[in-house]
Amino acid sequence: MVVNGHPSASYSITIRLDIPQHPGAFASVATAIGNEGGILGAIDLVRTAANVVTRDVTVSCTDEDHAARISAACAALPGVVVRSVSDRTFRLHLGGKISVAPKVPIKTRDDLSMAYTPGVGRICLAIAEDPAKAWTLTIKRNTVAVVTDGTAVLGLGDLGPAAAMPVMEGKAMLFKEFADVDAWPICLDTKNPDEIVRIVKAIAPGFGGINLEDISAPRCFEIEARLREELDIPVFHDDQHGTAIVVLAALVNALRVVGKSPDGLRVVVVGVGAAGTACTNIILAHGVRDVVGVDEHGIVHAGRDDLDAARRTYAALTNPRGLTGSVRDALRGADVVIGLSVPGAIPEDGIDLMAANRIVFTLANPVPDVSPEAIASKVAVLATGRSDYPNQINNVLAFPGVFRGALDVRASTITESMKLAAAVAIAGVIGADELGPEYIVPSVFNRRVSEAVAEAVAKAAVEAGVARRGDPVA
Amino acid sequence: MVVNGHPSASYSITIRLDIPQHPGAFASVATAIGNEGGILGAIDLVRTAANVVTRDVTVSCTDEDHAARISAACAALPGVVVRSVSDRTFRLHLGGKISVAPKVPIKTRDDLSMAYTPGVGRICLAIAEDPAKAWTLTIKRNTVAVVTDGTAVLGLGDLGPAAAMPVMEGKAMLFKEFADVDAWPICLDTKNPDEIVRIVKAIAPGFGGINLEDISAPRCFEIEARLREELDIPVFHDDQHGTAIVVLAALVNALRVVGKSPDGLRVVVVGVGAAGTACTNIILAHGVRDVVGVDEHGIVHAGRDDLDAARRTYAALTNPRGLTGSVRDALRGADVVIGLSVPGAIPEDGIDLMAANRIVFTLANPVPDVSPEAIASKVAVLATGRSDYPNQINNVLAFPGVFRGALDVRASTITESMKLAAAVAIAGVIGADELGPEYIVPSVFNRRVSEAVAEAVAKAAVEAGVARRGDPVA
Repeated sequence: MVVNGHPSASYSITIRLDIPQHPGAFASVATAIGNEGGILGAIDLVRTAANVVTRDVTVSCTDEDHAARISAACAALPGVVVRSVSDRTFRLHLGGKISVAPKVPIKTRDDLSMAYTPGVGRICLAIAEDPAKAWTLTIKRNTVAVVTDGTAVLGLGDLGPAAAMPVMEGKAMLFKEFADVDAWPICLDTKNPDEIVRIVKAIAPGFGGINLEDISAPRCFEIEARLREELDIPVFHDDQHGTAIVVLAALVNALRVVGKSPDGLRVVVVGVGAAGTACTNIILAHGVRDVVGVDEHGIVHAGRDDLDAARRTYAALTNPRGLTGSVRDALRGADVVIGLSVPGAIPEDGIDLMAANRIVFTLANPVPDVSPEAIASKVAVLATGRSDYPNQINNVLAFPGVFRGALDVRASTITESMKLAAAVAIAGVIGADELGPEYIVPSVFNRRVSEAVAEAVAKAAVEAGVARRGDPVA
Repeated sequence: MVVNGHPSASYSITIRLDIPQHPGAFASVATAIGNEGGILGAIDLVRTAANVVTRDVTVSCTDEDHAARISAACAALPGVVVRSVSDRTFRLHLGGKISVAPKVPIKTRDDLSMAYTPGVGRICLAIAEDPAKAWTLTIKRNTVAVVTDGTAVLGLGDLGPAAAMPVMEGKAMLFKEFADVDAWPICLDTKNPDEIVRIVKAIAPGFGGINLEDISAPRCFEIEARLREELDIPVFHDDQHGTAIVVLAALVNALRVVGKSPDGLRVVVVGVGAAGTACTNIILAHGVRDVVGVDEHGIVHAGRDDLDAARRTYAALTNPRGLTGSVRDALRGADVVIGLSVPGAIPEDGIDLMAANRIVFTLANPVPDVSPEAIASKVAVLATGRSDYPNQINNVLAFPGVFRGALDVRASTITESMKLAAAVAIAGVIGADELGPEYIVPSVFNRRVSEAVAEAVAKAAVEAGVARRGDPVA
């Protein structure tokens, strides 16, 4: 998001302008903005005075310099005065993005005596006698902690816990909007895996699930594995599994488009960090047998002596034909390539080496692993991580419904089968009559997605034997 | 709240009854309920059928047995059928009492691109560059963690973290209702003070303040002291300081009623645990010089060899006349006694030994240290911790406004002067013309209380040099 080629709402400004009151005056403002490449949005009248109209003009820009150029162009017009320029994204964040809402008001003594002392004491005693009642008598049954240490914030790296808050608040908003899950951000001022595990275990009583977020690899693997082992509520590292679920959903539909099946399919994964590893695992679980990973040193194979523990495990599970060499060697004859790396990691000419009816997911963000424009004409199906191309692979399609489903049946964990079910459910939202090369992934605003995911995940949890029933309460 | 002498909303039931459709039928139900001592509340019509009316009848009871007797009395009436009995307090708690509310909706791609990726990345970078911006661009500036380990839940003891949740949720509701503070419950599955300190420090980046709650003494002293030392946000153990603030507010007004001043006043504090110690400290800070503490072994004095570190400190700060002996010895000639102990800790005949115009605060809950009825005629001013007598000492008068004021000026800590200011502000809500022996404490539903407290606390923070200004944001 630091480099961004075209104007978007994510970088939009509101300019308050005094404009002379004569015919054509506003047209000259609009023209100046257009000439600078800004896209005009809302135009609000603030007030009119003798000979002057004050307006708030919202303009989508590409970045800070662009915004400055647009303001300057307005200020240069005869008689036009720029009174203020405000950044809409900053304005939206003032005071943060979430708040706490009591479910019932406390307006009378009776309200107080039921929601607080003395009435609440009976509820506490009921839970102390039967801890399972926490699922019915507290917020636990609908509440998820969004936990990070701020070490891998978006693609921006180790920004620390305070700077990670806006992402975690955003995540909490999405949980609520898309699946009515109450999520609260917990940004930890420690990078020590032991300490993170201890803290999450300690705060777990008040939560029905733990969403780990933006924790850097390889620590994220250890932290998630230990918490999964030691807690009796779902623990889900979204950067790994959310991405993996949506990638598999897209792959399922891309295969429907090109008429190929998992059996015999050759898949290359470029970038084998947290997301690449999770994508590989879910694709293997879906029945694909030939996955080859590529990292910055080339194809991952058991013969390399520079592999850490995670990559040795990866090598053992993948690359059944024992390939060695570069990313081009991996791409030769491949049906699918999934990029989760850095710009340039997938060479344009490597795409030419792939099998017919190629499927390319280039998910590095904001700049893809390979230029979508450069390869679009050579591939059967193309997906990216960006909203300005068709087929956006977006975690928002997965995590709200996954937790909704898990909470609905009080799942004790999230199994592989629940993730597979989520992927198939997302894919299934697109009917056979709608499916096409430019429509393999449903819109994030399609309400049916989280419902379908929740239902599938809940069903899979019951089948896997990890669903719990709560005690009915008087 | 386990023992409760009279019917109240905190123990009320809704009975669904089929009642024959003939004159006098409902009157017989009402009579039966009244004869059993139940207090009739709402009466809702559910449906009418041939010869039968189904109604939901809400009845305030004293306890479970009482509720059962009332239901049985209804069922015994000719033609009346009890279809269900539900406990209103339990019903109110189903699914918990708070939820998370996004401040702006996410309905369009533009919303998503500003509140989440890619726009949110710029907000994260801004905070990473200048951490103080977390106070303006995240929820930190309005958010408090309500932290407990569940070791001293209300008067019920060590119920554990899950059973403490309903109290902490209730606290979060009160924070929102009375002071628009967003508070989130953090119930910790550890009793180790070192670990609690480490955890609270680690989760602090996302919060503007820490409200410690229901942590047993003496661990609460160490935990609070270390967190105050190590964090740059307010840390406030409500059981200590919330109680102390409201006790001092009540004392200030009680002294106005009886025309005495702090100077020369003799105060006895019965029970020197967390609340008793904090009350003593704030009363001393207010200018009272003669405070004598009494614990289960009698008057606390430096000559005793059974004192732990906390009580040795207590002995050094109090008892200037070097009293020894029992609670009766302490009460002889005292102007004020404050009970924060157990039923019977203040003997009825001890009240007779006090000076004229006695002030008695008997705050043990639900059963007071001394029976209010037994001593009412002998005292000038009487206050309890219960809502069914005049002058209820209730923490709700203090903590919402204290944190509102501290957050408003981004206080780094809560000083003694801020607590004193809060107490004086609460007392000041009652004008000279309203003040009387039965009205020394304002109602918890008086909106002016938290406003007055917030204003006084913010001003005191600025004067103490612990207020911070945030950077203005574009």
